[in-house]
Formats: sequence, structure tokens, C-alpha cells
Amino acid sequence: GFSLCEVCAVHCQRFLMSRVGEDWIFLILLGLVMALVSFVMDFCIALLLQAQKWMYGGLDSNVILQYLAWVTYPVVLISFSAGFTHIVAPQAAGSGIPEMKTILRGVVLKEYLTLKTFVAKVVGLTCALGSGLPLGKEGPFVHIASLCAALLCKFMSFFGGIYENESRNIEMLAAACAVGVGCCFAAPIGGVLFSIEVTSTFFAVRNYWRGFFAATFSAFIFRVLAVWNRDEETITALFKTRFRLDFPFDLQELPAFAVIGIASGFGGALFVYLNRLIVQFMRKQKTINKFLMKKRLLYPALVTLLISTLSFPPGFGQFMAGQLTQKETLVSFFDNRTWTKQGMTEDFNYDSHSAAWKHPQANVFVILVIFIVMKFWMSALATTLPVPCGAFMPVFVIGAAFGRLVGESMAAWFPEGINTDGIIYPIVPGGYAVVGAAALSGAVTHTVSTAVIVFELTGQISHILPIMIAVILANAVAQSLQPSIYDSIIRIKKLPYLPELGWGHHEKYNIRVEDIMVRDVRYITLNSTYRDLHEILLIGNLKTVALVESAESMILLGSIERAQLQALLTQHLSRERRLEFIRDRADAERKRVSVVSTPSSEEGGQKVNHEVRFQISTEESSFTPARPISPKPLKPALKRTSTAEKNIEIPTSPHDSGIGLKNLLCARPQTDAMEEDPDAEDDMTLGEIEEWEEQQLDEQVNFNSWKIDPAPFQLVERTSLHKTHTIFSLLGLDHAYVTSIGRLIGVVSLRELRKAIEGSMTVKGVKVRPPLASFRDSGTSGTSSESEATELHKLWDRHTSISIPREHQPNTSDSDEKSQ
Amino acid sequence: GFSLCEVCAVHCQRFLMSRVGEDWIFLILLGLVMALVSFVMDFCIALLLQAQKWMYGGLDSNVILQYLAWVTYPVVLISFSAGFTHIVAPQAAGSGIPEMKTILRGVVLKEYLTLKTFVAKVVGLTCALGSGLPLGKEGPFVHIASLCAALLCKFMSFFGGIYENESRNIEMLAAACAVGVGCCFAAPIGGVLFSIEVTSTFFAVRNYWRGFFAATFSAFIFRVLAVWNRDEETITALFKTRFRLDFPFDLQELPAFAVIGIASGFGGALFVYLNRLIVQFMRKQKTINKFLMKKRLLYPALVTLLISTLSFPPGFGQFMAGQLTQKETLVSFFDNRTWTKQGMTEDFNYDSHSAAWKHPQANVFVILVIFIVMKFWMSALATTLPVPCGAFMPVFVIGAAFGRLVGESMAAWFPEGINTDGIIYPIVPGGYAVVGAAALSGAVTHTVSTAVIVFELTGQISHILPIMIAVILANAVAQSLQPSIYDSIIRIKKLPYLPELGWGHHEKYNIRVEDIMVRDVRYITLNSTYRDLHEILLIGNLKTVALVESAESMILLGSIERAQLQALLTQHLSRERRLEFIRDRADAERKRVSVVSTPSSEEGGQKVNHEVRFQISTEESSFTPARPISPKPLKPALKRTSTAEKNIEIPTSPHDSGIGLKNLLCARPQTDAMEEDPDAEDDMTLGEIEEWEEQQLDEQVNFNSWKIDPAPFQLVERTSLHKTHTIFSLLGLDHAYVTSIGRLIGVVSLRELRKAIEGSMTVKGVKVRPPLASFRDSGTSGTSSESEATELHKLWDRHTSISIPREHQPNTSDSDEKSQ
Repeated sequence: GFSLCEVCAVHCQRFLMSRVGEDWIFLILLGLVMALVSFVMDFCIALLLQAQKWMYGGLDSNVILQYLAWVTYPVVLISFSAGFTHIVAPQAAGSGIPEMKTILRGVVLKEYLTLKTFVAKVVGLTCALGSGLPLGKEGPFVHIASLCAALLCKFMSFFGGIYENESRNIEMLAAACAVGVGCCFAAPIGGVLFSIEVTSTFFAVRNYWRGFFAATFSAFIFRVLAVWNRDEETITALFKTRFRLDFPFDLQELPAFAVIGIASGFGGALFVYLNRLIVQFMRKQKTINKFLMKKRLLYPALVTLLISTLSFPPGFGQFMAGQLTQKETLVSFFDNRTWTKQGMTEDFNYDSHSAAWKHPQANVFVILVIFIVMKFWMSALATTLPVPCGAFMPVFVIGAAFGRLVGESMAAWFPEGINTDGIIYPIVPGGYAVVGAAALSGAVTHTVSTAVIVFELTGQISHILPIMIAVILANAVAQSLQPSIYDSIIRIKKLPYLPELGWGHHEKYNIRVEDIMVRDVRYITLNSTYRDLHEILLIGNLKTVALVESAESMILLGSIERAQLQALLTQHLSRERRLEFIRDRADAERKRVSVVSTPSSEEGGQKVNHEVRFQISTEESSFTPARPISPKPLKPALKRTSTAEKNIEIPTSPHDSGIGLKNLLCARPQTDAMEEDPDAEDDMTLGEIEEWEEQQLDEQVNFNSWKIDPAPFQLVERTSLHKTHTIFSLLGLDHAYVTSIGRLIGVVSLRELRKAIEGSMTVKGVKVRPPLASFRDSGTSGTSSESEATELHKLWDRHTSISIPREHQPNTSDSDEKSQ
Repeated sequence: GFSLCEVCAVHCQRFLMSRVGEDWIFLILLGLVMALVSFVMDFCIALLLQAQKWMYGGLDSNVILQYLAWVTYPVVLISFSAGFTHIVAPQAAGSGIPEMKTILRGVVLKEYLTLKTFVAKVVGLTCALGSGLPLGKEGPFVHIASLCAALLCKFMSFFGGIYENESRNIEMLAAACAVGVGCCFAAPIGGVLFSIEVTSTFFAVRNYWRGFFAATFSAFIFRVLAVWNRDEETITALFKTRFRLDFPFDLQELPAFAVIGIASGFGGALFVYLNRLIVQFMRKQKTINKFLMKKRLLYPALVTLLISTLSFPPGFGQFMAGQLTQKETLVSFFDNRTWTKQGMTEDFNYDSHSAAWKHPQANVFVILVIFIVMKFWMSALATTLPVPCGAFMPVFVIGAAFGRLVGESMAAWFPEGINTDGIIYPIVPGGYAVVGAAALSGAVTHTVSTAVIVFELTGQISHILPIMIAVILANAVAQSLQPSIYDSIIRIKKLPYLPELGWGHHEKYNIRVEDIMVRDVRYITLNSTYRDLHEILLIGNLKTVALVESAESMILLGSIERAQLQALLTQHLSRERRLEFIRDRADAERKRVSVVSTPSSEEGGQKVNHEVRFQISTEESSFTPARPISPKPLKPALKRTSTAEKNIEIPTSPHDSGIGLKNLLCARPQTDAMEEDPDAEDDMTLGEIEEWEEQQLDEQVNFNSWKIDPAPFQLVERTSLHKTHTIFSLLGLDHAYVTSIGRLIGVVSLRELRKAIEGSMTVKGVKVRPPLASFRDSGTSGTSSESEATELHKLWDRHTSISIPREHQPNTSDSDEKSQ
């Protein structure tokens, strides 16, 4: 027994090592942490919600007091959530899925994966959900899981170096997204699929496995915690349904399910549109906006006040089951008894949840319609609040309500069921609610995996075909009308994400890379001086700089990271090197002096004093107005500036920045060197230092200490836009160099590509339209025109005749775009 | 009502046009066709199986007759299936998933997607499954669906041109795989996921949507047909289970589920190993092999005889429920009552299926163990037969049996259930059977989506966590021991598939493209003559040929498809051009003749005769021994040969192949030209034609009619193996050119890459180890060693000093590999 276990353990480990790499510990840890976080948060949210109920129940003697308590509580919670998020980490507001989509695309979003953001997201989300507003948690959970993964990566990199690899980290984040959804709904399979659909364009199947592993573990622990906590007897679904298995639905009910699907499609598109409309309206209204900007917490507080006032149970809330929480609402919708006439008299008062839908004056149908309409705009409004919140769950509830409405109508229409073969199978409105929930959430998020999530949430798969049909129809309609809620947010937030290339528009995009590339590439050559490096660092904006053989040949040899260049320049102008220079000079001097006498010893001492004073002054630059040269102007160019000092002009001539550069970059190594080497005398005057630096800058760069990527991604200038898009998406590129027979002629970054795809405006107004543009449309990408003669001789002649495609005009439109 | 419908229809269509492209009709048609095929096949299989039962039941008076009937029937069916498959399309034998995996990778496998193969697969599979042998249908169904898709593509390309695009067709095939699995099990979601896991490495999420669409439609129609056929009352799962929902399992049962998972892992690995062992054994045994080769149908017949003898119900079959079909066996395994003591007395005789497990002499446990052991080797053996068959279903049944065994043991062990909180929840052995089925099939196929398939097959998702845990553990164990059954078949069949790069072995693969590339690239230059084209066509084996600027500069300008070159050469040596030449010459002659007299009119007539005879002789080459020049030797090089004429030597000198080449290639255009232009006199002698052709071959190629890909995929010589693998996998490349600063220095094809990944043998024994190999390991791919100096100056010098990296040694190892 034990030896077998050992063998198994060895095998499991060997497998995990080979298949999941060293990451299986990581994935288990991630699952564990997320399950705990999810459990604790759920517990806190339940407590908060219960507190409101308790307050509301305790004050039932006085309606005004009751109202005040009912309203104040969510206002305080939401205001706290918004304030806390704003102060600790503003990045934590909102869903998180759009940002993760962007990050998984390979774009680095600053501050999105830090401990601060984690704290803000967890605390903010707990408060927001505890307020009882129609908000969801699946988006924030994806973000929280990714934060966990990022922090775990950092933590584990203390023990081993493998977690420093960027592409590996992105794979971890992909698994984390699955874990996030998985342990939010206790739905591992649906979680994996949903996260794939929502975040990826191309998906590596190996990540799928990791996602399953981590999400299952996480969901398992999450549910086990519930069992241990005596919430549940055993592991079951979150919203368990009890529909009959033998005859779940009749074939003739399918049209009704299809109607739910199509209507949900329209509803989903409307929701996305409404959500975007609210955001844009709030942005445009300058006067309101200014006022709200000053009082940041006013907008959330006002919205919360409005929503909670309308759902006050003794008030309007009685017509929309205002006293029920989201969870209770869902449970009542998925109930497998009908609410309409035949069943109502007997067992409608079975539990308190369903009782909320019974009103003395109003019909069940009227209440459901009011619920749907009110919750619809409330959810669309609430999800624009600057608190951590998602839109999935509110939409899911609305969808369930709509499904229930259709189901109840069907049940009222066919009280005996549709089947006429003898046995009476009454219609199950709960099944319609499940279908509606899957369809509407699928329509809003543009996913089909909501179907799987629904199966896992309800623990029943009997309605698989109606659900699949409704979800597909809903997607069909919604996708033709609006982007998904996540893509909508990406557009609103202007995140650097590459849009999808439309289907069947291959012909429209007969654009080549040469039409959209930036021809004004920053590069360095094998003969570059340090001054060139300095200039490059001042201007460019890409992560890497191209290295070409010479300005004449322009043959691309590789690319160097910007950070490398900075380090190189820093090191070249370092104090150590200067002290070495001084020592060398002193040696040479001594040799000369040994021949002649020593006249200027006193002057040397003075020099040292002067220099020491200067050094202090540069390190505390803002306190010494007498500084001869300001180091400030260089800071923005070198991107090492603090946010407080942004409004500074760029230096007009690079000449007056030598010392500043040195001072700025070398502050730390300089002092280190002084501590290490206190005997070395730094007896250079300011002028001398400047002169030395100028001299150093004119030296040729030494290549031996460079870390060069010898194979940066290259495209040929005639690569089609479609191919470029595919390659960028597949490989997650940030930019690619465009070469023509080995010569660097341009660079394409995500930005150009995005512009070219979104509107052909930019492409049509291309500055340098190459002479062979008319020949270009006859490419070889599958269209079968016979006249596809690519006149290579001409092409070749053109390239040899172009000497250097270097255009050093400062293009203002670029910098304009950047500031967005 | 109607106008709303119209609006919906318009939107649906608009969406479908934009999202699925023009393919939605295609996908619906595909789903419909596959559902029909699946339904009809199922019907036929059921008939065949029933016929056997009927025969067996009718002859119960005489055991010997009964045995003969029982045994002869499957032997005849399997022999027919094997024979039919062999005669019509040998490609139809086996599963089909390995081949589809290879095809989706971008490799063109000949004859795999033809109508013949379709017929052979459908007929062969029906007979094979009708025989009652432990064979599955999910693999063949994937192949059948792909065949349907390919044929539909062809069919629809009559109406519009969009179905000729190769990449689009591959996307269609990906959707078709999902449809295949989906309508085989009526499991759309599981089908999509299974097909993704089994066939893809990288997956485009947009295909996911198509797969869902087509698979859902297909599964829907498939099930609706069953309802219309009165097999079912409404749409439900294929193997519906009725486990209790309120308390599906106790937490303390989880270790038992984990044991099932781990044991299934070992079992799955053993199955794959056994399967491969049998194939290799049959191959190695030369004497047996020779005998069997002669009598192709003997092996299938013998295997069938053995298996059906052992499962003869009155014989040994009584100890392994031999009379049950696969479907009946599964139904009995998934039964929610226990077979052990407490329930057996009362309702064990409820239906005939479960009765098969009751034996007067033997225990239920003994019978289950015998069943598992016998079916295990029988399935492994049966799946090696050369008939269309899969391994999924047999393995699924064995897994279910194993799960049932564990479940029954648990039920015997804890007759009152494990939970001690008051209510007695007896253990459900059927749940264990479901878990076992998912785990073992997951282990054999290396997939986790078997879990989803199981949910959809049984219509219950209550055991989700046990199933997920067992499947993951089974995968963990199996993947550490053996490849999946499909990868195993890929290796056995030596299909051109790129193996996965192991995880966590990035360091091991510090190999660069330059180490594995073929340096002896075939290329043509801008100054190439037609003779060069001819030579290129004789030697190379890649789909495209590189075009470089000149042999000196080697600068890569693009690539041309081999077929293009062939067409170009054909056209250049065409009869039309020769006739034109004759006309021109005649004109010139006439001018000369107008001055002099005409002496040789009779000789001209003779020439014509001679030429016409020659033309006939070349077209019917095998019947004219007096032919002066044989056109045969060229055929293999031009790949237009029939399979019968393979063993022919390559011509030693290209000189004697001029006319042959022309005759071979131009046979059709020539006759066309003659019909069109009957007046033109072809009065050249054989020698003159040869001379003319030689002259034509020496002409420089005219570039105007070329169809060139200006941006073939390029890699830099220092690209790491890992990066190369990723790019090849992602983009589905067949080969990529290796360039160094624009110069073509090599080419890497799938073959080199596969070799490099599979064994580092080839890589270590690389012929031309570049001088900077030691510097190479210090790349920039994320490892953080500080000494990563890439000595670019040296690199650059090296490249300029290499004049032409052209090595025209015939490498025999290559051609050796090719002949496999």
C-alpha cells in the first residue's frame, strides 16, 4: 500500500516536473491561496449583507429610520470602497478582465500587478459586493487571481530563478485567469473556457492543462472549505437545481428557448451600449464632470443612493423583490416549481425567497418585468462606478429573470405541458431561467462558455441543448450589434490592445507593412559613439533600439534593449572610469613632474573642495540655486523622473547636458565608489569634468559588454497587413523591424498596426507612398489573379538606388498620440 | 411577430456573415450531413449487432452451430471491412486522429481527404463496429467529419472561390474535427474541447466558436433524428444516469476516486505500450509477417476468431458478460443500483443487462476482474487491425468496468455508506464507473476533456469534482510514462508531425537554427537560365524554391512555388512557342527562299511524319521500345509519376533529358495546340527539337509572369531552437529560410526541426559547426548570465568573408530519409 503510494507520488512528481515544469507547486499554491481568498471574501460579503438585513429588520417600527439605515449602509460602503481604491491603487477599480486581456497580449501595464493593487482590489470588492448593489465579482476575481500569481512569482523568485522569465510569467497569468473564474463560481471547466474566450486570441493548448489543474484544485478547496465550515453537507454546485431528469423539456419548447436566445442577444448588446453611453455622458458633461472631479466620492454616493432608494423594500422595492440579495434572487429563479396559478395556492409560501415575488396588488409577470427593467439600467449604471466590480453576475441575474418570465408565461399558456402522448410533463420555468441566464451573460461577454458555467453552477446538464442553442443565438445577435463588454471597456479606456481583424475582409486589407511602418527608425551603428546612444535615449519610445552595420548599408544586425543602452552609458560616464582617468593622468603627470617641479599643490586642494561641494549640490539639486548646470532637463528623456517634476523643457542642444546626464545616472555608483575607494582623489574642476565627459561621449562604443538580441523579429516590407496582424497576435509582439533584403527600412509597432486596422484613414494618408504601390495589390496571399507579376528587377533597382531611408523630421503627430 | 422575426433573421445573418464569414452555411451543412451520416451508421451498426444476436438466439438448440454462427459473423464482417478498406482506400484504416493532427499542422497527406477514403471509412467502420469487437468510433468519426468538410469545400468551390484558400480549409477542418467527436457522442462541448486537445498545439479562439456552432447543430440534429425515429421521447443524453442529486458522494470517498485516477493512469500507459508492442512485434517477426503480408485478410480474421471465441457466451464469455454489446455494457455499468449483496436479491433481475454480471459460480468481483483483464488485451489487439476503428470507446468501457469494480468494493465495504451524520446515503457504484471511464479514456488520450464528454454522455454533472480529480491524476501518471495513443500512432506511422518541446528543458536546447539548418539550399537567381530551373526541379524536395539576387550576394528576394516553376518551364518549352519559333524561322527562310530556290520539300514531309510518330510514342511510352530518348527518368523528379513506376534511376547528365522533359510536361498543351492550330506545320526533326530545347534552356528566365511570395518566412541563423519551434508550431510552417543579414544561408524544414527535438544526436553530430558556437549559448533569451557578449564585429567579419555558402554534395542521408 505505502510503497505503491510512493511509486505513485514519484510518478506524479516526475510527470508534473516534465509536463507542468517546476510550476506544479506554483499552481497548487495559487489554487490554495485563491480558494482561501475567495472563501474569506465570500464570508465577509455574507456578513456585510446580513448586517444590512439585520439593521433593516431591527428597525421595522419606524419606516424613516428603516429607510435611512437601508440607504446609508450601502452609501457608506460604496464610498469607502471608492475612496480606498482611489487612495491605495486607482488601477484596482473596474473589472480587470480588459486589463488582463491587454497584459496577456504582452503589453506591460504599470502598477496593475502590485501588492497595493491586490489589497485595494480585495478590500474594495468586499465592500462593494457587501453593499448589495447589482455588482459582480468574476472580473475582479480574474484580476485578483492574476495579482496572486504575480506576487507568488515574485515570492518564488527568491528561491529560484525560473520565475523571472517574462513569457513564463504570462503563461502563469493565463492559468491564473482560469483560477479566478473557476473559484469564483466553483466552476473549473467553465472557468478555464471562459478565461480563454475572454482573454485570448490564440491559445497554447499546454496552458489549457495548467488552467484545468489549478482551477480544479482551487474549486475543490473552495468547496471543501464550505463543507468544513458546515455550510454544506458535501461538495455540490453553488446554485443546485432539482429539475426532473427523465423528461427535462419537450422538443416543442425549443422555439421558446430560441426566442430567449435572440432576445438576450438584443438585450446584451443594449446593455453594453447603455454602459458605454453612461461613461461617455459622464465624460462629456464638463460642468457636472468638474464638480464631480472635485468631490470624487460624490458620484458613487449619488448612484448608490438612487439605486438603494429605488430598491427599498417597503417602497418601490416591493415591486422588484428589493429585499432579496443576488444569491437569493438566483435561487428563487432556479426553483423548479411554477409561480403561476396552479402551484401558487399550495406551496408558494414554502420559503421566504419565492414569497418576495408574490404581491397582493401585482401579478408575478408585472413584478418580473419591473425587476428586469429596473435591474437592467441599475446594473449598467452601477458597473460604471469607480469601485472594483464586474458585470457578469448582475447580467446573469437579469437573464435568469427574463428566462423565468418566459418560462412562467409558457407554464400559464400550457398548464398541462405540451406533450400529448399521455403522461403530463408540466413546464419547468426554472429551466427557462437557467437558459436565460446563460444566454444574456453570453451575449454581454461574447462567450459560449457561459453554458458550461451554468452547468457547473446548477449541477445539472439536462438542458444542454436548449442552453447551447440560446447561447449561440444570443452571441450571434449581440456580436453583430456591439463589441463585448470587455472590448467596450478596452476602447473606452484606450488600452493598447490589438483589435480583431474582421472576418471575410481579407480583400479590404490589401495594405502592406511598408504603408504603415514608421520609416524614421532610431538605430545605432557599429561605429556609433556614446553621444549617439545619448541622443537615441532622448528621442525614441520603443523598448528596443535597432543595431545596424552602418548608416550607409543599414543592414540589421540585432536589437538592444533600451535599459541596456542606459546601463552602458551610465557605466561609461561613471565615476570609477573618471577616477581611473584621473589616476592615469596623475601617473602621466607624475612622470612629467618627476622631471619638472610641483608648482600647483595648493590649487589641487582647492579643486577637491570645489568638487566635493558640487557633488553634494547635485545630489540635493533642488536646494542649491547656485548650481552651474541644471541636471533636470534630462530627466524626462531618460524616464527616471519622479512624477512631480514633469513640466520641464527638453534641452535644445545636447551639449549642455553632459554633466547633468552623468550626475543623474551615476548618483548611486558615484557614492558607492567613494565609499569603496576613499583614497582616490577626484581633483577635476567642473569644466574639466565637462570636458572629460564630452571627450568620453565622442568615443566609439565598446561592443564587448553588450547584450544583443541577434534575431529581433523582422518583416519584409511587402508583408500583408493580414499576415502582420496574425504574426503580432500569435507571437504577442510589441514591434517588429521591417527589412528589405537585410536592410532596415522601418519599424512597425502595435500602435501603427492598430491604427491601420481600426481606420484606414491613417493608411490612406500615408506620408511616403512608395512608387510601386500600384503593383502591390497583386500579392500572392491567395487571391487568384493572373497578372501577379512582381517586377523584381525594378524592385531590386529601387532598393539599391535608395541610399539611406533616414528621415530625421520630428513627427509631432506621434508625440501627440503618445500623450494619450 | 413576423417583422421581428425578419429583423432577427437579418441580424443573425449579418452577424454570421461578419463573424463566421460566409462559412455559416458551410458549418450548418456540415453539421447536417454529419448528423445524418452518424444516425444512419448507428442504425446500420445496431442492425448488424441485432442480426448477430438473432442468429445466436435462434440456434440455441445446438451449441456448435451457435458457436459457428457467433464466430463466423464477426470474422466475415471484419475481413470484409479490412478487404474493402484495403482495396478502396488503405488510408481509411485506423483511427484518423493522428492523421488529422498532422494535416491540421499544415502537412499535406495525399489521398487522405478524398471521396474514396470517405466511402471506405464509412463502410469499413460500419462493418467493423457491427462485428461486436471492442472497437471505437470517435477517431474514425473525426476523420469522416474532416472528409465531409473537405468534400463540401470542394463542392462549394463550384459556387464561389473562397473555399480554395488553404488556410481557410484548415480552419474548416478544425471545426470538422469538433463536429466529428460532437455527433459521435452527442457531446458538442466535450467534442470541441476533445478535438482541440487532441489535434492542436496552438489554437485560434475564433475556431472555437465555429466548432461550437457546428457541433451543437450536429448534435442537435443527431438527437432530434432519434426522437423523430421514436427511439427517444425527447432529447436526452446517450447514456443517461439517474444518480441522486442531493448527496452525490461523500467527501471521504474522494481517496477512492483518486485511487481510480492513479490506477487508470498506469492502465492507460500500459494500454498505449501494449498497443505499440503488438504493432512492433508484428512488424519485427519477419517470417510471420511475410506470410501475413501475402494473405492480408488472415491477420484480421485470426484476431477476430480469437476474440469472438473467447467471448462466446456459453463458453468463456459467461465469465465476462460476452453477450452484451458495448452499449449495453456501459448502460449496466452506469446503473445506479449496487450489484453486491444487499440489492442483489430483490431487483438484480430488473433488466437483462445487469443479469449478465450475475453468475451462479463466480462472484461479481471475479467477473469484473476477468472482464477488465480480457477486454484490456483484446482492445489493445483489436485496435491494431487494419480496419477503420478507434480506441476511445473500448478504453472507456474498460475504465467504467474498473470504476464499477472499485465502486462495488466500496459498497461492499461500507454497506451503510460513509456519512455518519444520521441519514444513510449508500454508495453509488455507478458514479465510480463514470469516474473510471473518464479517467482511463483521459489517460489513454492524454486529455482532460473526457470529463466533459462524460457529463454530456450521462447527462449528469453531479460528480464533477471526483471526475476532474481522477482525470487529472490519470493524466499526470500516464503522461509521465507514455505518449498518448495518438502520438504513439504518429510515431509508429512516422507521420511528419512536430513533437512537443519538453517543459522546463529550455536550457537543454541551447541549439541555434544554424546548427540544424540545411546549408545546401536550392535557389535560383535573377540571372538563372531555364536549365537551372530544370535542375532545381530535379533535385529539391521542398514546396518552394528560394529566389536570390545572385549567387555572389545570395540576398533573398522571395520564394516561388515549385508548381509555378514547373508551369513556367512547361510554358517555355511548349509546342506553341516552338511553333512560333518555326513560323519565325519559316518567315526568315521564306525571305531567303524568295531569293534562292526550294530544293527539299519532300524531306520536309518526311520530317513531319517522323515527328508525329515520335509524339505518339512518347505518349504511350511503355509500348514503343524503339524510342530514342526515354522520358521516364524525369518522372520521379517532377513528382507526376504514377506509383507503379518508382524504381528508376535519376539521369546522370541533364543533357539527355531536354526533350523528355518537354514531352512529359507538355503532352496536353501540345495536343490542344494542335487542335487549335491545325494549319501550323511542325516540321522540326528530333535533333532540331533537341537543339531548340537546349537553346531555350540556356535562355535567361523571364520574370514578368512569375508569381513570387515576396515575404517568405525568414529566421536569423542565431534563432534558438525553442523560438524556432514556437514559430513553426504557431504559424504552421513547413519550412523557413535562414538568412544572415539578408543573405540566404540555409533552410530549415520540419524534418530538421523534428530530428533536432527528438534526439540531440543529429545536432551534436552537426557537420558544419560554426566557429562562434561557444559564444552562442550566451543568448538573450532570458537566462541571466552576465558574460553575454555577442561579438558582433567578428560575426560581421565572418559573414563578409564567406563568399557563397553553396555546397553541392549530394547528401545521401536526406534521400534515404525521404523514402520512408
